[in-house]
Formats: sequence, C-alpha cells, structure tokens
Amino acid sequence: MGDSTATPSSVVTRGGYAKGEARREQIVEVAAEIFGTQGFRAATMLQIAAACGISRTGLLHHFPTKESLLEAVLARRDSGLDPSHPPATDRDDDGLQVLRGLLAVVEHNATQPRIVNLFSVLSAEAGDPAHPAHDYFRQRYARLRADLQQTLRGMAASDQLTPGTDPDALAVEIIALMDGLQVQWVLAPGDLDMAAVLRHRLDAALTVPLDDLPSPGTAATEEQR
Amino acid sequence: MGDSTATPSSVVTRGGYAKGEARREQIVEVAAEIFGTQGFRAATMLQIAAACGISRTGLLHHFPTKESLLEAVLARRDSGLDPSHPPATDRDDDGLQVLRGLLAVVEHNATQPRIVNLFSVLSAEAGDPAHPAHDYFRQRYARLRADLQQTLRGMAASDQLTPGTDPDALAVEIIALMDGLQVQWVLAPGDLDMAAVLRHRLDAALTVPLDDLPSPGTAATEEQR
Repeated sequence: MGDSTATPSSVVTRGGYAKGEARREQIVEVAAEIFGTQGFRAATMLQIAAACGISRTGLLHHFPTKESLLEAVLARRDSGLDPSHPPATDRDDDGLQVLRGLLAVVEHNATQPRIVNLFSVLSAEAGDPAHPAHDYFRQRYARLRADLQQTLRGMAASDQLTPGTDPDALAVEIIALMDGLQVQWVLAPGDLDMAAVLRHRLDAALTVPLDDLPSPGTAATEEQR
Repeated sequence: MGDSTATPSSVVTRGGYAKGEARREQIVEVAAEIFGTQGFRAATMLQIAAACGISRTGLLHHFPTKESLLEAVLARRDSGLDPSHPPATDRDDDGLQVLRGLLAVVEHNATQPRIVNLFSVLSAEAGDPAHPAHDYFRQRYARLRADLQQTLRGMAASDQLTPGTDPDALAVEIIALMDGLQVQWVLAPGDLDMAAVLRHRLDAALTVPLDDLPSPGTAATEEQR
C-alpha cells in the first residue's frame, strides 16, 4: 500500500493535498450512501471502490478498513459538514429556540431520504454490542438525552411545559419520536409529514406558543454575538 | 435437493411431518436472531445453517432462498406465535383497551431485546425500495396507522382526547414513538423505561385515566366471548 496507490498527480503537484482531501470527501459521501441502503455489515469495500471509480487498493490507501470508513462517515455527520445535524455546540440557552432547532432539523431531513435512512440503518445495526458503531451510538444518545433533559428541565422550571409534564421523559420521547418518524417516512414519504407530527407533539407539551419568535431587533442582536 | 437432504427418520416415521415442522420452526427462530444482529443483507444462508447445526443443502431443503426465510420470519411475527406482536384481529372497539394493549406490548418487548432489534434493523433496511421486505413494511405501517387513526378518531369523538389533539397525527406519533424507543433502549437498556415513556405520552393525550379498568365482572364476560 502507501503512496504507490495514489495517482502521481495527487502526490507531486502543489494541489496534491487538496486533491487527496477532495477524494476522501467523495469516498465518504459514497460510503454514506451505500451504508444507508445496504447497511454497514453488508456493504463491501470493493463495492464502495467501484462506486467511487477507483480500485480497491486505491480505496484502502485512504481508508485501510471498512471500520475506519464508518468512523469518517459518522465524524462527518457530527462535524457540522452534514447540514442535517448541527454540532452540539449550536445549543441555545433558550429552550424554545432549541425546540425550534429540532423542528428545523426534521424539516431539513425531509429533503434527505438517503441520509435519514443511513442513520436509521446504522443506529439499529449498532444495537448489537459487537457492531463497530455500538459505542458511538450509545454515547450519542446518552449525550442527546442529557442535553435535551437539561433544556426541558429549565423550561419546566419557568412554567413553559404543561402541568404534569416530566421533562426527563419528554426528552427521551422527543428523540425517539424523531427517530421513529424517519423509519415510517422513508418507507412512505407521501403518507406523513414528519415536521407536522413533531410540531403537534411540541405544541401539546408547551404552555407558550412555539412560533412566538423574538422581535427582529432582538434576533439580529443575538445572531451577531 | 428434495428429500435426499432430510434425515431418514423425518421422512419415513409417522412423526415425520411434525419433525419437519419443528425443524422449520427452529430454523426460523435462529434466522430471526441472526437477521436481528447482522441485518438481513449481511446474514448468509451458510451462517444460518451452521447455527442450526445442519448443512447448507439441508437448510435449502426447507427454505430455498434467503428471501423465503425472511418471509417466514415476518409471517411468524404476524401470526401471533410471536407473543410480542398480537395479530391485528386482537383490536378492540374500546380505545382505552387498545392503548392499554400497546403498553402491554411495550412492556413485553422490554424482555425481548433480540426480537426488538430484529424489527429495528429490518424496518430500517427496508427503507431501500430494493429490499425484499420493503413492501411488507410499507403495508404494515399503512395498516397500523389506519387502525390506530380509526381508534383515536373514535376517542376524540367521545372527548377522551385532550382538546386540540389531532387523532391522525397522534396515531403516527405513537407508532413512531414505540419504534424510536426500541432503538434507544436496545443500545442502553438500563438508561430508559420504554413503557414509562409511552405511558407518560398517553396520559398527556387523554382526558380519562388509562388505568380505570372495567369492573372484574365486565372483564370476565368480555373474555368469555
């Protein structure tokens, strides 16, 4: 392996690094699509290489194992490069803003059936403790739950949740609802509106209107910070 | 193929049919477990045969293709033999009874992580229109939605749902919630209580207590019918 598998131009020219990065980016995109339709376990490196128009050896130069490619796919998702999943640092102290953000993610996902399906397949496969993404998804859900629970506890404390609402249970519920909607929606996109169902749930849990946006002046100030 | 692959005893003895059925049943159980951990696409007939302690040819005698085995796994689930999924005919005209039934299913599922994971993996894989279970899951969800929507419309009409609740959206939501909870729970069974979260949601949607069971006399009469 090593450099012998790279095309000469990508090694010797000034643009070599950029070209290598572009190629890696292309491979990760193709792999995400194949993992999303075939599942991680059934996908083969040969199949991914062929879809990229490179040899298996060429692929192994960039990603020595299928596991390393899966890691790159998941890292891309978490990096913010994947627009369907803003990084965790985008969290807002304003609970309503967080919930609006979730709705925006769902609305965006409704334009990306393949990415949505990738996530459903991988998170389900990862239920097996032997799956290479098991720890990734375990930690990811633990973090999502903890973050949303903190947000919703704050909202409960300021009477923004309907009486009797348990913020911890609601956090688990909202995450589960978003995941479950994706499975139904990918199977029959015309039969349900994911964002409308999530909004219906959020409206039922809130004592304040979800859409009562701050005045344009305030919003601009906040965006500038 | 044909009879040559069956053991002599299963062909010539009186118990031959019963033994053949028992073997089929065993194969379907093993296949369900392997599909549940590996996914349908990655599982191989050789692997399933080995786990059953028979040859690949012996397996092909009972199930000529992996698709036919998947059909049998899904049919078992729908037949009522799989206790986690009562057949659709168990539906009750009493909406509260239907919702209590869903809770009972979730409580039962919490004892069956492998079956739960089988379902999550297959329904996610089936998002790909080329997957052999695509039509099965599409139709299954369409039927589940239609049944639950009908039930919840009846409950809305008799003021059993909180004001502002859209029964159609709530039906989609409850099904999605049950699916999404399974993915989170299989990854970290100790971190969440699926039934408690579903109950929290149902309580919030109802104007009547979920646990106000009919008097023992009435329940006995209904069971005798």
